[in-house]
Amino acid sequence: MKAVILAGGSGTRLWPLSTPARPKQFLPLFGEQSLLQMTAARLSKLMKPEDIFVVAPGEYTHIISEQLSDLFKIPFSNTITEPVPRNTAPAIALAIAFLRDEKQIALNEPILVCPADHYINPVERFVALVAEAAKHYHEHIITFGIEPIRPETGYGYLELSGATSGDLYKVSSFIEKPDADTAALFVSSGRHCWNAGIFMFSIATILLEFEKHVPDVHRFITHNSYTECLSRFSVQESVSIDYAVMEKSTRILCKRLDVDWSDIGSWDAFYHLFPKDEHGNVVTGKIVSIDSQNSLVLGQSKPIALCGLKDIIVIETEDALLLCDRARSQEVKKIAKTITSQFGQKDAC
Amino acid sequence: MKAVILAGGSGTRLWPLSTPARPKQFLPLFGEQSLLQMTAARLSKLMKPEDIFVVAPGEYTHIISEQLSDLFKIPFSNTITEPVPRNTAPAIALAIAFLRDEKQIALNEPILVCPADHYINPVERFVALVAEAAKHYHEHIITFGIEPIRPETGYGYLELSGATSGDLYKVSSFIEKPDADTAALFVSSGRHCWNAGIFMFSIATILLEFEKHVPDVHRFITHNSYTECLSRFSVQESVSIDYAVMEKSTRILCKRLDVDWSDIGSWDAFYHLFPKDEHGNVVTGKIVSIDSQNSLVLGQSKPIALCGLKDIIVIETEDALLLCDRARSQEVKKIAKTITSQFGQKDAC
Repeated sequence: MKAVILAGGSGTRLWPLSTPARPKQFLPLFGEQSLLQMTAARLSKLMKPEDIFVVAPGEYTHIISEQLSDLFKIPFSNTITEPVPRNTAPAIALAIAFLRDEKQIALNEPILVCPADHYINPVERFVALVAEAAKHYHEHIITFGIEPIRPETGYGYLELSGATSGDLYKVSSFIEKPDADTAALFVSSGRHCWNAGIFMFSIATILLEFEKHVPDVHRFITHNSYTECLSRFSVQESVSIDYAVMEKSTRILCKRLDVDWSDIGSWDAFYHLFPKDEHGNVVTGKIVSIDSQNSLVLGQSKPIALCGLKDIIVIETEDALLLCDRARSQEVKKIAKTITSQFGQKDAC
Repeated sequence: MKAVILAGGSGTRLWPLSTPARPKQFLPLFGEQSLLQMTAARLSKLMKPEDIFVVAPGEYTHIISEQLSDLFKIPFSNTITEPVPRNTAPAIALAIAFLRDEKQIALNEPILVCPADHYINPVERFVALVAEAAKHYHEHIITFGIEPIRPETGYGYLELSGATSGDLYKVSSFIEKPDADTAALFVSSGRHCWNAGIFMFSIATILLEFEKHVPDVHRFITHNSYTECLSRFSVQESVSIDYAVMEKSTRILCKRLDVDWSDIGSWDAFYHLFPKDEHGNVVTGKIVSIDSQNSLVLGQSKPIALCGLKDIIVIETEDALLLCDRARSQEVKKIAKTITSQFGQKDAC
């Protein structure tokens, strides 16, 4: 098996800790290792270091090398540089061209594509289920679905129908960001999963699907060598792999993952991943809290005093300070953009 | 007329902007001049610079000189150093001994005593009313009462009875920090004022009242020279001039001041002194606010983003960050103490 880690996110949803100069996949949000490193650690249980590849823009290749070369022995030459950001479909196409032309991998070998910035626990269970799926991937695209544990409205959902061999399920539809009532129905239905954006397919299969659903992309990688793909990359349309292929393909099967998972797509999502103190708070730094509840406070060096607040997000960095109602944490991306345009902060976004 | 400015407050109620190393009286909270400088500016309209005196602990004499010598020509030798903090009654007694022994002022000359850290507007009205009161101070202690404009529960109130000559009122009682209902009654009664802690009396009169109500203090300044008072100051009991004399004296008369006034005793009080933007916010610094209301945000150098918050106080300094429900701003002093004891922050309090 090979793996392609998608490490191109600019991570503005966790601003100001995450910035375009150092987006969230490179931050050690859960201890010593960054999310990218935790992703590499998971994949290292499934394959050799030289079989793990990373796609990212040129400005991140230095950080990627720093984080993966020594600790995980993943060669620097396994980093595929996106010349410009064009979302996941072109990024995956470029990686396919690289694996085909530069690594000459077999057209029927399974390739696991996964984002660099997700939280997954426990690792052993994830690894076991991916290994199981790899026995049944032939001629299919396997998408990994997470058992939903709360009516999350920020995620995409997969609706499953009958099971096939190897505990794989047919996918009858993709539902993006349902309203709260619909999400609640999905959680209780037993037939819905969160779309984790983790896929497994062979080059042969994905090429068939590119041909059927995005012929431009198919032409791009079948008529060009990897090197030519690089120089022509910028004319590709920016489109996600979900929209381009997954939501349309009839080769999709879902492998259900009964693991804790998060795309850490907001500070509220981040808050939910940690154990709370007796007041429902998650805090790091020099914090003094009086009558404050259900809040996330990440301090830097200076002391922070909280009094009488609840459901608030406080993120302090050297460069900026975010104060946000937890229910509004989806708006952080917009705030970060406004801050940058108003104050031109170098690292904001 | 002479004036004695009481500049000894440690100002922890406006932490973290105000710290014991630089308490609020020395901060330019309303523009270029500090509260002490604004106080000196008011007094300069009533008397010559050499007639303005300042009482403060030794650690503040350097700042006082910096703020008053050049701009207001108040001599450095007009600063009276409190050897240790002992509240306002001993501080005033020490100033009286200084004026008597070192400046040989007449025993019947009016002395205006006022805190260094109050907000008063307009200055001209204040000056005119104080000058008017100075015509009628003989054998009385004049206390200045502010027309109350809201049912403030954090202030002391004066209850007035019949008027005497010169628009001075008898004071029938002092009421400290009434509950909200009582405060509301006071505001509508027409017979109550806020106690501004500004007084006018002669040495002769205050000595009579010291003798009657606090004989220890009377003995202290009548049996000792100013120099001896200094060396024996630390054995004095710590007590406020209100408690020691004003609440008991029958020589008290009240001069009503129809001016805007605040002791700026909390961040909420500070918030009330400024014009609000269309969302009820008072902000300085690089602030981006989305759907945030009725809040006070004082930023330093770094951008601050607010989203979906209301009635919050945000004070950012180089050394600390305060986040507080506006209704809880009375608790800032306690928070500042906790921060210091937990993190030993040099300047916290």
